[in-house]
Amino acid sequence: MQVVLVIIDGLGDEYIPELGGTPLEFASRNFAALNKLASEGMCGIMYPVAPGIPPSSDIGHLAIFGYDIKTEYPGRGYFEALGAGIKLRKGEVAFRVNLATVKKEGNHLIVIDRRAGRISGEEAEELYKVLDEKLKEEGLPARVLHTLEHRGVLIIKGENLLGAVTDTDPHEINAPVLMVVPWKELDEKLKPYAQKTADILNKITIISHEILKNHEINIKREKSRKPPANIILARGGGIAKTITPFKEKWGFNAAFIAAGALYKGIARALGMKEIPVKGATGTPATNLAGKVEGCMKALESGYDFVYLHIKGTDNLSHDRKPREKAEFLLKIDHVLKPLTELDDVVIIVTGDHSTSSIRGRHIGLPVPIIFWSKSIRRDPVKVFNENSCASGALGTLFGRDIMKIILDLTDRTMEIGTRPEGPALVL
Amino acid sequence: MQVVLVIIDGLGDEYIPELGGTPLEFASRNFAALNKLASEGMCGIMYPVAPGIPPSSDIGHLAIFGYDIKTEYPGRGYFEALGAGIKLRKGEVAFRVNLATVKKEGNHLIVIDRRAGRISGEEAEELYKVLDEKLKEEGLPARVLHTLEHRGVLIIKGENLLGAVTDTDPHEINAPVLMVVPWKELDEKLKPYAQKTADILNKITIISHEILKNHEINIKREKSRKPPANIILARGGGIAKTITPFKEKWGFNAAFIAAGALYKGIARALGMKEIPVKGATGTPATNLAGKVEGCMKALESGYDFVYLHIKGTDNLSHDRKPREKAEFLLKIDHVLKPLTELDDVVIIVTGDHSTSSIRGRHIGLPVPIIFWSKSIRRDPVKVFNENSCASGALGTLFGRDIMKIILDLTDRTMEIGTRPEGPALVL
Repeated sequence: MQVVLVIIDGLGDEYIPELGGTPLEFASRNFAALNKLASEGMCGIMYPVAPGIPPSSDIGHLAIFGYDIKTEYPGRGYFEALGAGIKLRKGEVAFRVNLATVKKEGNHLIVIDRRAGRISGEEAEELYKVLDEKLKEEGLPARVLHTLEHRGVLIIKGENLLGAVTDTDPHEINAPVLMVVPWKELDEKLKPYAQKTADILNKITIISHEILKNHEINIKREKSRKPPANIILARGGGIAKTITPFKEKWGFNAAFIAAGALYKGIARALGMKEIPVKGATGTPATNLAGKVEGCMKALESGYDFVYLHIKGTDNLSHDRKPREKAEFLLKIDHVLKPLTELDDVVIIVTGDHSTSSIRGRHIGLPVPIIFWSKSIRRDPVKVFNENSCASGALGTLFGRDIMKIILDLTDRTMEIGTRPEGPALVL
Repeated sequence: MQVVLVIIDGLGDEYIPELGGTPLEFASRNFAALNKLASEGMCGIMYPVAPGIPPSSDIGHLAIFGYDIKTEYPGRGYFEALGAGIKLRKGEVAFRVNLATVKKEGNHLIVIDRRAGRISGEEAEELYKVLDEKLKEEGLPARVLHTLEHRGVLIIKGENLLGAVTDTDPHEINAPVLMVVPWKELDEKLKPYAQKTADILNKITIISHEILKNHEINIKREKSRKPPANIILARGGGIAKTITPFKEKWGFNAAFIAAGALYKGIARALGMKEIPVKGATGTPATNLAGKVEGCMKALESGYDFVYLHIKGTDNLSHDRKPREKAEFLLKIDHVLKPLTELDDVVIIVTGDHSTSSIRGRHIGLPVPIIFWSKSIRRDPVKVFNENSCASGALGTLFGRDIMKIILDLTDRTMEIGTRPEGPALVL
């Protein structure tokens, strides 16, 4: 039996007074496909990591894919680099970077916009290119690459580098850009290597401001009252690390459909095969129908596991646009219809974490989850949202449970204690 | 954002035929404040430790406060002593004691009432004083102090003592007072120290019966057919142990309102500041309104976490008085109104464990819990009781989750992997 896992990024939310509920609750009143899946399936709520713990998207995904975050997590930068097409070599460190807007106050740079007004991909591409050339000119062992919108990847090359350093990104506005330092809990013997990495990153941060602040794109942006993309903010240092392939861990021959670099990177790191989709952007303007077509194509090609990622919901929550999030959720529901007409497929719909459209950040509340298959026990849940699924018959789940339930639904599990593993007996 | 955590002791219960439900279910039909919080908040059920595990009140509390019971629990006596105003020194051992009623049968003392008919504080005070003087006279390195009602603390001084000894209290009636022995799983090397402690406690137990049985207070009690307080029963040996302060662990500047010695002791051990309330007795006759006023005062004084403890519910369950428990719950609901009119406060209402009013003991069933804040996702739960909260959108929680959810709701968490920890970058 084939499996489709739909992960809607930042799916859960908080109470939005003007919607009389969460964006998903509001949208779910008019769902067709998702409510059909809920009605015919089995529902529950899922804490990706644990109650009250807000995961980043990569942590949420890895937890759902059944990986141990404590031992198998290479750091976000690793996935971002892989998503941008670069496989880190031993000794290299990668960071996720944002083009952002800062203003100078004394000797400090104060963050005004962490995403430079969600600058267009074209402008960002150019600015990353200019910065990349400058780094080369300065003789710094580093590269920056544009991925999507304001996002990019920074790779520091060399030896004796470590990803165990703090972020320059303060993760909030009106706060200063931060100095990179080694993690305080890091083994004292390793601190010099982290310090070396930190020194390079601090230097690059200052250079990025110097080179970007006077670039004509930013001068033009400022004239048209758009926030200039005058710095890169880094976070999530990651190193090359071997992760057990998905196939080896769970036995599935998996394909993926995702636009964001992080999600591509995760799927590639696990050895999933990419199904490219034209117009997939990782934004609310993405080609949703094309992504579902890609999913159908992957199933036809014989992949027995398809991971379909939809990112726009999370963007809209970070931008505090709950109504637009609800509208985008309706669009998602609309394109999912072909999936609900499939036979002999297990479909799972959930999120990698909740994101508050009030607070503009990831939060530790659970996400709803549907498991749908022909034979699965049907519970009384008829509508797909956070509250309805809380009375679902699967109860309270954790990210680490999901793959195990999938194996069980597709007859890939054995009773504990059952071990028909030897070769055939020879007479 | 400020936090109020209301812990109603022994909140959950079993099915009471005459009430057609639990005392909380029965009372909740007429709740105003608690049902408002439930309607506007997010609910769930919570196992303080794990399903089927009945915690003592101190264990239930520590679990909710996010402490690891296996490594951070000093033993109940430590908290009881601290609650009575005594900080144990290294080497000292403290026990929680009860004035109880026993009758002699052959060479044994059979427990008739574990609380000597919930003897009045005045009488108990006098009996503890007499016993304390007797111990001094006998040259025993020990002190007893009265706390509330039948309750007291016994402290054994000296060197090479250990709290790892069994209880004299059989924890049931019609059973003999028990001899104290070292824990059987204790390391053989440590057993001599535990044996030394046990010998002293056994001696004190016998002396307590000898000195109390003939005291005029007891002769008077027997005349008026009240059970005499003719022994002390000890349990919960505890030693001095450093516990991470609440402020250091969770960042909150916390205050507490509690009357019982155990609860004061826990809060003091964690470094919480006491808000004294006149007429707070730790019984159903407590000054409930005064406690809520104390809570409001603490919030006005700028404490960002207020722990409000209400004990009477547990007493009434132990005394098998479900109807009185329901009535007391209605009184609690009545006084909580001012809390529901606050802005920008997160309110949590729950219990430290369930106590059965049928069986008169702590049980391992879950307790209901409400998290209430302005923006929290609202679930369909409209009534605060064990069954309604079980369909709440938080699902099944454990004690260890509570502080993490509180941190998340008050914007004190960061996404995992996010580390904005360095100082401001200097140009």
